[in-house]
Amino acid sequence: MAAWRGFGSDNHSGVHPEVLAAIVDANTGHAHAYGDDEWTVRAAACLQVEFGENSQVAFVFNGTGANVVGLSAVCRPWESVVCAESAHIATDECAAPEHIANVKLVTVLTPDGKLTPELVKPALTGFGFEHHAQPKVISISNVTELGTLYTPSELRTLADLAHSKNMLLHVDGARLANAAVGLGASIADLTVHAGVDLLSLGGTKNGMLAGEAVVLLGDACTDALPYVRKQSAQLPSKMRFLAAQFLAMYGTDLWRRCAANANKMALALATGAGALGIGIAFPVQANEVFALLPDAAIPDLQERFHFYAWEEGVADGHSLVRWVTSWDTTIDDVNGLLEALGER
Amino acid sequence: MAAWRGFGSDNHSGVHPEVLAAIVDANTGHAHAYGDDEWTVRAAACLQVEFGENSQVAFVFNGTGANVVGLSAVCRPWESVVCAESAHIATDECAAPEHIANVKLVTVLTPDGKLTPELVKPALTGFGFEHHAQPKVISISNVTELGTLYTPSELRTLADLAHSKNMLLHVDGARLANAAVGLGASIADLTVHAGVDLLSLGGTKNGMLAGEAVVLLGDACTDALPYVRKQSAQLPSKMRFLAAQFLAMYGTDLWRRCAANANKMALALATGAGALGIGIAFPVQANEVFALLPDAAIPDLQERFHFYAWEEGVADGHSLVRWVTSWDTTIDDVNGLLEALGER
Amino acid sequence: MAAWRGFGSDNHSGVHPEVLAAIVDANTGHAHAYGDDEWTVRAAACLQVEFGENSQVAFVFNGTGANVVGLSAVCRPWESVVCAESAHIATDECAAPEHIANVKLVTVLTPDGKLTPELVKPALTGFGFEHHAQPKVISISNVTELGTLYTPSELRTLADLAHSKNMLLHVDGARLANAAVGLGASIADLTVHAGVDLLSLGGTKNGMLAGEAVVLLGDACTDALPYVRKQSAQLPSKMRFLAAQFLAMYGTDLWRRCAANANKMALALATGAGALGIGIAFPVQANEVFALLPDAAIPDLQERFHFYAWEEGVADGHSLVRWVTSWDTTIDDVNGLLEALGER
Amino acid sequence: MAAWRGFGSDNHSGVHPEVLAAIVDANTGHAHAYGDDEWTVRAAACLQVEFGENSQVAFVFNGTGANVVGLSAVCRPWESVVCAESAHIATDECAAPEHIANVKLVTVLTPDGKLTPELVKPALTGFGFEHHAQPKVISISNVTELGTLYTPSELRTLADLAHSKNMLLHVDGARLANAAVGLGASIADLTVHAGVDLLSLGGTKNGMLAGEAVVLLGDACTDALPYVRKQSAQLPSKMRFLAAQFLAMYGTDLWRRCAANANKMALALATGAGALGIGIAFPVQANEVFALLPDAAIPDLQERFHFYAWEEGVADGHSLVRWVTSWDTTIDDVNGLLEALGER
Repeated sequence: MAAWRGFGSDNHSGVHPEVLAAIVDANTGHAHAYGDDEWTVRAAACLQVEFGENSQVAFVFNGTGANVVGLSAVCRPWESVVCAESAHIATDECAAPEHIANVKLVTVLTPDGKLTPELVKPALTGFGFEHHAQPKVISISNVTELGTLYTPSELRTLADLAHSKNMLLHVDGARLANAAVGLGASIADLTVHAGVDLLSLGGTKNGMLAGEAVVLLGDACTDALPYVRKQSAQLPSKMRFLAAQFLAMYGTDLWRRCAANANKMALALATGAGALGIGIAFPVQANEVFALLPDAAIPDLQERFHFYAWEEGVADGHSLVRWVTSWDTTIDDVNGLLEALGER
Repeated sequence: MAAWRGFGSDNHSGVHPEVLAAIVDANTGHAHAYGDDEWTVRAAACLQVEFGENSQVAFVFNGTGANVVGLSAVCRPWESVVCAESAHIATDECAAPEHIANVKLVTVLTPDGKLTPELVKPALTGFGFEHHAQPKVISISNVTELGTLYTPSELRTLADLAHSKNMLLHVDGARLANAAVGLGASIADLTVHAGVDLLSLGGTKNGMLAGEAVVLLGDACTDALPYVRKQSAQLPSKMRFLAAQFLAMYGTDLWRRCAANANKMALALATGAGALGIGIAFPVQANEVFALLPDAAIPDLQERFHFYAWEEGVADGHSLVRWVTSWDTTIDDVNGLLEALGER
Repeated sequence: MAAWRGFGSDNHSGVHPEVLAAIVDANTGHAHAYGDDEWTVRAAACLQVEFGENSQVAFVFNGTGANVVGLSAVCRPWESVVCAESAHIATDECAAPEHIANVKLVTVLTPDGKLTPELVKPALTGFGFEHHAQPKVISISNVTELGTLYTPSELRTLADLAHSKNMLLHVDGARLANAAVGLGASIADLTVHAGVDLLSLGGTKNGMLAGEAVVLLGDACTDALPYVRKQSAQLPSKMRFLAAQFLAMYGTDLWRRCAANANKMALALATGAGALGIGIAFPVQANEVFALLPDAAIPDLQERFHFYAWEEGVADGHSLVRWVTSWDTTIDDVNGLLEALGER
Repeated sequence: MAAWRGFGSDNHSGVHPEVLAAIVDANTGHAHAYGDDEWTVRAAACLQVEFGENSQVAFVFNGTGANVVGLSAVCRPWESVVCAESAHIATDECAAPEHIANVKLVTVLTPDGKLTPELVKPALTGFGFEHHAQPKVISISNVTELGTLYTPSELRTLADLAHSKNMLLHVDGARLANAAVGLGASIADLTVHAGVDLLSLGGTKNGMLAGEAVVLLGDACTDALPYVRKQSAQLPSKMRFLAAQFLAMYGTDLWRRCAANANKMALALATGAGALGIGIAFPVQANEVFALLPDAAIPDLQERFHFYAWEEGVADGHSLVRWVTSWDTTIDDVNGLLEALGER
């Protein structure tokens, strides 16, 4: 097939060689299905080193799967999840949270994809009032869909708010590795140490073939987890091949190396574009760059660099585009795009 | 990890080397996510050679996913699916059909896992009566959960019955390759040529890492398919790695070679066991053998050969056990089990 | 409108004059909506005299509503309800239990509409196995859909079985008043004293305009109840008019008088029909009679007496029909039908 | 019970005597259940005089029931409903639209409870994009939850917008009678003549005991309606008693008389309060008045006049309260409240 590279999504990149090698290595003999195998036991244990013993880890196929399994494990059908209007669960999961996880979403407008206590509080109403879906979870994405980050102290503030209302804090961490690297923090710093109750821990976007993990922490742990995973069609039969990827990724520092490269390339791209006078819409804190480009220039650039328009017509004759860097993005890739931008 | 081999499930075997090679080969450059890539286009086209142009193919992660995506694509929430009481959708999917696909299951007792028009007809009632969920689909498994097969003419009879009631015939084909080999038939003979309307086409059990396909045929084709797949969290982002497996499997005769080996080994096992005086419960037509063993002998054999008890206490001091052979089962594996059975 | 009377259903009869008078009396001034009114407080208290303080009572519109609200209050979406194949929840609620209450139904064949421990036990499998929906409730109807009754000791046996598996016993008591009268028992004898955990307590069929009650007992009590009732669209706004009916019915012996008349008329009808040589299919223990009539005789009788065929072609040239008596059935009504039967 | 009167809700008022008389009159002899009776046929026909032959009418118990039955009849589970953030379906139905009707809600901020094309358009995105729930319905309330009205031409503009996107326009008409009277329009002017596709037609708030109607118009008509009504537990058994109320209400001008009184009393209240210098938050176009009162004055007034706070702390030391008038509100009731307001 024709090979190309671009800035469309970290989903466009392939599998990191160390991950692929782990898959190949796991292909030996028979193994019990559905997670009752040594790879899964070891991969879960390896994550529990990070999250502590008072945690549950369940591997699933994909990010939407991780979100719906986690949310349905902790919510009842009349409970609601407060999230940013730009949240992936609200915009890009085709109502899976409502339909599969049986939760109501209550969305909040944000300037930069980030919830704050001030933004969230007006949505925390109607407790005990049977007419109103009961707020149960505050859900955030870290990295957000706009490439911005929550610091540990911002997370703690939201967690405290949630807990003060008997609610839980959920993190969609499809890009949590990028957040950790961006903040110079550990995975634990951004989750268990910050009061987070449940987590979708990403793998695919950071160099895996496929695989995410649902992580429940502390009081969020529940016997519901295996059943909601199976019922949500997110229980892989040949689980060892997912678990082997997690072992390769989180049993070493590979997750950090992959994310560090992606973040570094995003910063190089943003810095270079800024130097060319291109407006950058949000702080570049991880591996996403949102740039304001003249509409006329976009189609040709897209054809060569495979990125997506994010919002059309945001300023006179200009649209917002999104560039995503990946574990495999090279400085040559970045310079190629910068060169093309400079030629306009 | 410790290597072992057994007869527990075709899910216990690993990935066929040709499939793994295809995955490795697909790991080049970037590719658009969610199926908008060359591998997916080619894999779908390759299946449509079999199914005809009047078909839709959607790759999903696993078997439960394939069943719920297919059923929800063609059913409305007040419609029902008639199936055998032993059907995988009824017993082994943790109510995913009811909860994710929003269908009601109406189960029918069978002697051998197979529906017949006589068995099904009493369940085809209440049409047009608003109090009664409306029968919409007859769902069968081919291979059945008891290792038995539907012939093309049996399929046609059920399809005709379904169509006479404005219903559809669904085939859970997690082991359809084994059925085709067992019957000396093509995939098309067991589906589009026999009047089948929708199909879950298996890959994982026959040597893939993970991947199944939902196939809609003729009038069952619907614009609902992409949305129900996404909403059911069954839309893989790095789809090329699923599609590459299907290309390796169905773009060559690998599916047939894998299934042929499994079926042959099952027959050898059943024949050998029968010669030892062991009762075989159902006709061995594919890659599953159900044998009646004395309860006292089972635990030791299980420890060595990793198979499951199917039904306990079916006869005085005897239980039914299930042996499943796989693409990688060898005659040495079979002889090892037969030898152990002979030593009792 | 043209007035007629018949044996089609206890839903065909109107409202008992004492109930209607209570509605008229309640139509005074304003009252808070949604149950925050004196009538509702008094009606719930009046039922709690029967059920004890460790109970919850929630009034709802109709029988399907009562069943789905009760079941969804105590079940999680991966749990299942074991019931007779003839159960109203399985056959006559258009998949509301699956779709609205989010439970899986597991049906059991019975000779007479009644579950026994022997019939139920094979369905109580797969506990702790994530692939299998977890059995949570045994659901019975008392009166059954075939007019038969469970005695207090039969109820206790099923309750003990349920509790031994950490399950609950649910009674669909749309005709519980008829059962109590038929058995010479109190409502409490058939529920709280017999180990029943949750109940749909009927009103409409026994002379109310509309209204049923969900009753949770003991450990089945849950804070989920108000939310599932509201979410299921079963929270009446002008609740006082439902509550007033319950006060008229259960705050006096009206429930007993109504049911006693219906049962007495059913017995008279069955006895008379038997004397005419007509086969009666099930023991007549409440207010339903199932009779075997020659097919040729049915249409003319139906036109005059408005009853339904239950099962066609059960014996050579004969079908089973259902006659239901009501609070307002008179001995003249019964004699009219018997006379017509005798004229054949 | 102690009689009182107030301004809490039109649900607090009782049943209009003409409606109650119709219920009493319908209590004669037997009638087929579930709508197969003369009252239901006549009541539906009477509404179809207004809506035209190309319409479907289904009576249900309550407003949430009407909304979920209508929406689920026309939506598939991956489709979304755009509505005001203040919409009853979004705030006061405990996620019934998401859970029972299986739709996603997309909410839009409004200044006065009214959607406009400008407000709605940004939510009409993602058509054909499988990741995004597909916008299918624009849902408005007329009267809105803030007491404001949509004119026929505003309705037509929204209907045209909806239809241009292959969407439908839904009206939650719990208080449609008040809207019609407020606008000097007919029911048809506000629905079928304005391009509305589906309607929840209110009865309870305007003087009925209980009962609403789902009305589908033109292309929105569907064979799904009876099944979704039954499955949603909204099919009354003794339907004649609902239908008789509709006959009394819409077979005469009672609906107009009731609404006219309520609207007139609201205007008198708003005018009088304004004369006392009390701020009125939204135009008083129907039977709801939102007034700004000093916090200190509210509790005593509430105790005497039974109204609800709507939003606390909207201005320095002031909160917004809601007064609702009803078919039975008298000028003495209004003057009593005005007098108390003047005494502060």
